[in-house]
Amino acid sequence: MASRIYAVIAGAGPGTGAAVARKFAEAYPVVLLARRAESYDKLVKEINESGGSAVGIATDVANADSVKAAFQTIDEKFGKDASCASAVFNASGKLALKPFLELTEAEFENPYNVNCKGGFYFSQAVLPRLLKGTSQSELKHPPTLLFTGATASLKSSAKFSSFAVAKFATRALAQSLAREFGPRGVHVGHVVIDGVIDLPTSKEYLKDAGPDAKIDPASIADTYWYLHTQPRSGFTHELEVRPFVEKW
Amino acid sequence: MASRIYAVIAGAGPGTGAAVARKFAEAYPVVLLARRAESYDKLVKEINESGGSAVGIATDVANADSVKAAFQTIDEKFGKDASCASAVFNASGKLALKPFLELTEAEFENPYNVNCKGGFYFSQAVLPRLLKGTSQSELKHPPTLLFTGATASLKSSAKFSSFAVAKFATRALAQSLAREFGPRGVHVGHVVIDGVIDLPTSKEYLKDAGPDAKIDPASIADTYWYLHTQPRSGFTHELEVRPFVEKW
Amino acid sequence: MASRIYAVIAGAGPGTGAAVARKFAEAYPVVLLARRAESYDKLVKEINESGGSAVGIATDVANADSVKAAFQTIDEKFGKDASCASAVFNASGKLALKPFLELTEAEFENPYNVNCKGGFYFSQAVLPRLLKGTSQSELKHPPTLLFTGATASLKSSAKFSSFAVAKFATRALAQSLAREFGPRGVHVGHVVIDGVIDLPTSKEYLKDAGPDAKIDPASIADTYWYLHTQPRSGFTHELEVRPFVEKW
Amino acid sequence: MASRIYAVIAGAGPGTGAAVARKFAEAYPVVLLARRAESYDKLVKEINESGGSAVGIATDVANADSVKAAFQTIDEKFGKDASCASAVFNASGKLALKPFLELTEAEFENPYNVNCKGGFYFSQAVLPRLLKGTSQSELKHPPTLLFTGATASLKSSAKFSSFAVAKFATRALAQSLAREFGPRGVHVGHVVIDGVIDLPTSKEYLKDAGPDAKIDPASIADTYWYLHTQPRSGFTHELEVRPFVEKW
Repeated sequence: MASRIYAVIAGAGPGTGAAVARKFAEAYPVVLLARRAESYDKLVKEINESGGSAVGIATDVANADSVKAAFQTIDEKFGKDASCASAVFNASGKLALKPFLELTEAEFENPYNVNCKGGFYFSQAVLPRLLKGTSQSELKHPPTLLFTGATASLKSSAKFSSFAVAKFATRALAQSLAREFGPRGVHVGHVVIDGVIDLPTSKEYLKDAGPDAKIDPASIADTYWYLHTQPRSGFTHELEVRPFVEKW
Repeated sequence: MASRIYAVIAGAGPGTGAAVARKFAEAYPVVLLARRAESYDKLVKEINESGGSAVGIATDVANADSVKAAFQTIDEKFGKDASCASAVFNASGKLALKPFLELTEAEFENPYNVNCKGGFYFSQAVLPRLLKGTSQSELKHPPTLLFTGATASLKSSAKFSSFAVAKFATRALAQSLAREFGPRGVHVGHVVIDGVIDLPTSKEYLKDAGPDAKIDPASIADTYWYLHTQPRSGFTHELEVRPFVEKW
Repeated sequence: MASRIYAVIAGAGPGTGAAVARKFAEAYPVVLLARRAESYDKLVKEINESGGSAVGIATDVANADSVKAAFQTIDEKFGKDASCASAVFNASGKLALKPFLELTEAEFENPYNVNCKGGFYFSQAVLPRLLKGTSQSELKHPPTLLFTGATASLKSSAKFSSFAVAKFATRALAQSLAREFGPRGVHVGHVVIDGVIDLPTSKEYLKDAGPDAKIDPASIADTYWYLHTQPRSGFTHELEVRPFVEKW
Repeated sequence: MASRIYAVIAGAGPGTGAAVARKFAEAYPVVLLARRAESYDKLVKEINESGGSAVGIATDVANADSVKAAFQTIDEKFGKDASCASAVFNASGKLALKPFLELTEAEFENPYNVNCKGGFYFSQAVLPRLLKGTSQSELKHPPTLLFTGATASLKSSAKFSSFAVAKFATRALAQSLAREFGPRGVHVGHVVIDGVIDLPTSKEYLKDAGPDAKIDPASIADTYWYLHTQPRSGFTHELEVRPFVEKW
């Protein structure tokens, strides 16, 4: 790989991450970050075999050194002058749905550490690489940094404190970055996924709700791609995606 | 015209309306509604001459009878069984930017009458025609009803009371319709335009703000089109569009 | 009555209006506006007999002339130089909870006409009388204009379009007035009542929800009074009040 | 001190914390927590000398053991069966107003650690003590847990990422606790301070903005007290307080 442009997806496991990776791989070499290689191995193979270009790097986004190492590997692969066309932060922690008084400190902290602190490490690493693209004529679309949000980004329900803390916090991070880096040409977006994603692991959910009651990851990927293609005269910072039957 | 599918745009004057009309005309015959024929005459000609199909109907959306008459004309042209693939409500009234105590009743009411009451008349007329499409296999995308919002849909500033009243109210209308008709298969969306649109009439605004400081209407139209293409497993109800330099 | 200071409550029927009237009557002569005299007759008597001072004026807030006449009567009673210490807009229209396509134009418009257009007429009449108080040393608290909101001020549910339109619109009005008249010394507030109010007419609601599941109107009145007593260095514009068991 | 009821204020330094302490000391023995004893020493003396009862405990709210130790001390002083009438979480970290790419990890984390993680430790410790009060007839008002918010609780500006992350996160914590513990009788509130507080240290701010352009801490304290006195039939979860001249 000698391309000077790439996209990077953190949290490239099945679901949103994989679908976004497939979509962006139609246009860019993609770098997939996930804690464990088995999360992306098949996908890397699939993309490479179908004419795209993908590489996976085992990365713990909640660990500063691990993120640093991942971007060193990226620099080695694509060159120090390469620019990032699009970065997607889709990592999430373990949801501990529990009465507040039963939450351990570790359970409370884990979603924050992965979502928000991970988002901090990732953003600090990738923003200089996104900024490079704002002056490069070969980029067709403004460089884009997209965060995956959830229902809990906007509403903090009983027993969801740890997850909502993480998601509210990450929304604050995305919003501040949009205001700081938007005027410098980087499109920062926040996509609120308000519904159950249609995955093998969510098979049992909403079984009787009829067809299309769960969000197709491919359509989420289309949304991320659409945001990526917006010109800088009209950026969308935030939108939600929800199945048509979802109460909200 | 004997097509059984069409799109209708209310408020088809220069700017968002015209751009949306051009975009949707690539896929559907379009019906353009505006109070005065001179608002759409050129555009109708342009679309018809470039391979599309357009018709204009002079309509005062704030007048119940006028809206009724417009949809009778539509039924005559496309047939009673025709279905509406996409309806865009983009009409707006006169902005009276004034100290509150100087507002006349007419100035206070005008934006509400056009935006919200007009939106009511339009939605009552078009929804049965959109619902037809939910069971029609020839439709590629779920039928869509889109409303144009503004900064004042979310924030009501000093001296903007009449406009913000109209825009908050219209947002309430769109949100209620999304919750009622989404589960029936109609995608109802609300697009918050947060910035100055790049038009001949806005030439003097933001003159020194550099390139792309005003929103290109064509990119707004792309957003409407993107919303239209979303599958029902993942509808977006609300998003904002703003130039990268916009403070918010 | 020769007092130069008074409070005025529009929508003085049983519930919030009556409770607010009783509370403010502890400090000011109160003027009660309601469409029909039977809405306030008993209350006027009760206040006058218990050492307070109250007067009722039959007023249709949705009618410009009726509002004008009411304030002429007020001027005659209190004197042209009298100032209004507090104005509460609590009028509401008829809730038509109906599928959107079954709503008549009158049903759609009625809540807007009473809430928002009524709020417009009332605010235009009362603001000059509130502004007088900002320079009067005899006023203990900044003059206050308070609006009664509802759950539907913030969320527009299916079948609630007409009510939510009215409530979103009135919130926009209150917010714009706060930004314009706050800096001139008038405290404009918006109280979101998010729950069922405990009234003879709501006896059947939440019967099995246990004690205190409905809001005591007297505690709502305490909230309005508390807002009235805030000094201008720390105004609250918006707050919600809800029973402790309410889901939200 | 043998009283079985007390109030506890975390973040009892000058400003909001001290004012709230003075106010609640009119009704309850108060426990003041701050990292350094010099933050509360004078205030403890002042309260004790003027007929109230106060005790200070040097506590680092961002440290689990320190918070645990503080509540052990409280239990020793007031007895294991004592109940907390009101708990106020007002601690805040160091604001690092900096371009995002210059933020160190420590600067990014500090406000979160103090505000949100501190809020977590404090809430886990104090909620069981607040819950005791819900069944105690001697309590005049429902037990209350109040969090201090800021402009950045609702809006995340450029260069404010670390502070907004902390404040959004803490708002999520407060909101989740309100939904979980409200139905159990504990009033959880979130007060958004939207303006500069009038303090010796803020003397240089808004010098030319005229009188009352900064919030009087005593009026903030009145707001906290008012929230504390609300009956459970009508709890307010969130409100903002801002000077009348503040743009927002």
